[in-house]
Amino acid sequence: LNQPPLTIAICGLGTVAQGVLALLKRNESLITQRAGRPIQVAAVASRTARPEVDLLGAEFSTDVRSVIEKPEVDLVLELIGGETLADELVRDALLRGKHVVTANKAIIAHHGDDYLELARARNLAFAFESAVAGGIPVIGALTRGLAANQINWIAGIINGTSNYILSEMADNGQSFAAALKQAQELGYAEADPTFDVGGIDAAHKLTILAALAFGMSMNFDAVYTEGIEALGGDDIEYARQLGYRIRHLGIARRSERGVELRVHPTLIPQQQLLASVDGVMNAVMFNSDAAGDTLYYGAGAGAGPTASAVVADLIDIAAGGAQRGVVAGQSPTVDVIPVEQTQSGFYLNIPSLDQPGVFARAATILSDHGISIDAVIQKEHPAQPDTEHAWVPIVILTHPVSEGVMNDAMAQLQAMPEVVDTIKRIRVEHFG
Amino acid sequence: LNQPPLTIAICGLGTVAQGVLALLKRNESLITQRAGRPIQVAAVASRTARPEVDLLGAEFSTDVRSVIEKPEVDLVLELIGGETLADELVRDALLRGKHVVTANKAIIAHHGDDYLELARARNLAFAFESAVAGGIPVIGALTRGLAANQINWIAGIINGTSNYILSEMADNGQSFAAALKQAQELGYAEADPTFDVGGIDAAHKLTILAALAFGMSMNFDAVYTEGIEALGGDDIEYARQLGYRIRHLGIARRSERGVELRVHPTLIPQQQLLASVDGVMNAVMFNSDAAGDTLYYGAGAGAGPTASAVVADLIDIAAGGAQRGVVAGQSPTVDVIPVEQTQSGFYLNIPSLDQPGVFARAATILSDHGISIDAVIQKEHPAQPDTEHAWVPIVILTHPVSEGVMNDAMAQLQAMPEVVDTIKRIRVEHFG
Repeated sequence: LNQPPLTIAICGLGTVAQGVLALLKRNESLITQRAGRPIQVAAVASRTARPEVDLLGAEFSTDVRSVIEKPEVDLVLELIGGETLADELVRDALLRGKHVVTANKAIIAHHGDDYLELARARNLAFAFESAVAGGIPVIGALTRGLAANQINWIAGIINGTSNYILSEMADNGQSFAAALKQAQELGYAEADPTFDVGGIDAAHKLTILAALAFGMSMNFDAVYTEGIEALGGDDIEYARQLGYRIRHLGIARRSERGVELRVHPTLIPQQQLLASVDGVMNAVMFNSDAAGDTLYYGAGAGAGPTASAVVADLIDIAAGGAQRGVVAGQSPTVDVIPVEQTQSGFYLNIPSLDQPGVFARAATILSDHGISIDAVIQKEHPAQPDTEHAWVPIVILTHPVSEGVMNDAMAQLQAMPEVVDTIKRIRVEHFG
Repeated sequence: LNQPPLTIAICGLGTVAQGVLALLKRNESLITQRAGRPIQVAAVASRTARPEVDLLGAEFSTDVRSVIEKPEVDLVLELIGGETLADELVRDALLRGKHVVTANKAIIAHHGDDYLELARARNLAFAFESAVAGGIPVIGALTRGLAANQINWIAGIINGTSNYILSEMADNGQSFAAALKQAQELGYAEADPTFDVGGIDAAHKLTILAALAFGMSMNFDAVYTEGIEALGGDDIEYARQLGYRIRHLGIARRSERGVELRVHPTLIPQQQLLASVDGVMNAVMFNSDAAGDTLYYGAGAGAGPTASAVVADLIDIAAGGAQRGVVAGQSPTVDVIPVEQTQSGFYLNIPSLDQPGVFARAATILSDHGISIDAVIQKEHPAQPDTEHAWVPIVILTHPVSEGVMNDAMAQLQAMPEVVDTIKRIRVEHFG
């Protein structure tokens, strides 16, 4: 503990940065003990006015570039958010020989290969435990805890906003719009919720997990991404009747042909642990060759949990752990499998005229494509019996089939004259 | 990767050691990449005859002491099990300047303070990820992932045998004896199941988790330990009716007065994630000041999961991580709170004669002790209506109360002339 401190500069002074400062202060002695030396904040920079927070004696500046130029700074903690300036800061800091810690999943998912390469070449740490699943140490699980394992697949609830909305829709019968509004009022969703409910945020995180699990490049553009906006309360209710819950999952699966990367709503059996993860909580499951299934659960956002992960990185770097176990980008030959070539079961919600023989014709189309039916819900009475064209939902659960085959079958189903509106489909996964 | 290998000796050649050898072989290139250098097995020793397994070119000996004397050995992997010889080997190896990895929770729970002290003084690693919760990296979560946090409490399903038996009793209506027999047939329970169903194994693991979480000494003797042998199918059914499941938990909770350490059957609300952990699986939940609640789930035993954790330790040590973040024994002033001074809710199953006024008298005894009742199940009809002394179970759930007060109340309840048999009580926890 008589070693020189790890000297850090913090760029950004929003919620997470304030959480980091508060945590470094509250648990100072414990953190010093675990790091083997003190962690000293030399400088804090924020483009906006300084809030009334304890900077632990650090200099304050509104010039975020200036702090990374300081020779005494060993490590830059990038917490300004956004993409362009954050990307420049991370590159600059690494080029100047500083370790970098960041919570910015967007820039990692886009440029993480560059950062890791810059860091490797200089024997620097580039650490980002807080970028995925907040306070849950899933990066550590991949890089250390499961380091001896080949990862077979990843399935994660990695966007708390979407999970909160789905939980509210299922448990309290709210519509998507009402649940989203409530999430916004509670601070769980942004004013512009597109990144969360559209699946982009989850795709950023899945990109990072897959790179670490499979040694592949950060391949955000190859992630098939679908959000939860189109889900109706009826889908959630039918799923329940069939023994499933709908969760918004990030899924990455390795096979001999490459790696599947997809983010979409998914029916999972009610009795699976992932189905019990409610509200804003996150959970990530890894299936690996030696450890089997392991699952990690906790808060995926918020100042405290995010600061917990950021300071874990600081402690690790202070104690000498530079980029240990990070294999991202080291297996450049890994291919991404197009989503059309992936397999899953499907839930189909087919709005049809209430006429005889419709179900039989739909079943024939599926059968002609070699798709077998697992379960069916057929309402006896039309959903809107008073309208001119009374229709009923035909709900079908299929066994696993390649998505390309299902696309062909869907086109024929949709073209049936009795089908009155767009067919909804949701993938089904059983995970082993 | 041109660095010299980490050279190891393996003492023991049972299931886990064979799993380690198989894993080192199967994932050799990945392990070398993550460790930054090869892991080479120089010697394997076992007191019994050599089984037909690939020793990866290592020398074999039946003299387990001889292999730790080899000067080229950097690390001794202790997997012989048992206590006396294993303890001697670990001490000897550390005294000779070898790193030590072990899966032996019993010797760590009893002598871990000594081992860590010997290792610290010599700047050696003493690592034991596999000793708690098998393939789930919970030691890593405490020492790395949550390193910035004060841990408030731990609650864990850390004995797969007990959890399997409780799951079978609840889901398939089996008796304790029948479920135990089935567990033995499936290889989930030993011929002598005392350590598992009596709670000793869980107490070993809780000792280790608490030492890492709270910086306290390994304090096995201070753990209050109760097994699952006395649980009846009726208790599990009444718990279900009240909205709870019974799980065998290890619980450690920090307060200003010290740390509670207890292992016992516990009613937990059905909707909590821990209640959904079924079969032989393990799960550990930590509540900490920054990250909040995090939970870690997976297989707690078996050759593959245990080998996963053992090899994770080997990789970590090969990469230079000697005893990072381990604070066990560094806060010697932590007191253990006697179980009489701990608080919890209680489930009481009071077998009583079916006479008027019995429930009122029992309720008065509780009330006189300041114990308030949360819920009651009172059967209208006797459980055994044809016997001479027809009796009914009075099932009461109480709000939290100190255990000492409950002990006094229990003595008075038991002394009621209408109570025909021993009252069963099970603690109730809600975890926040």
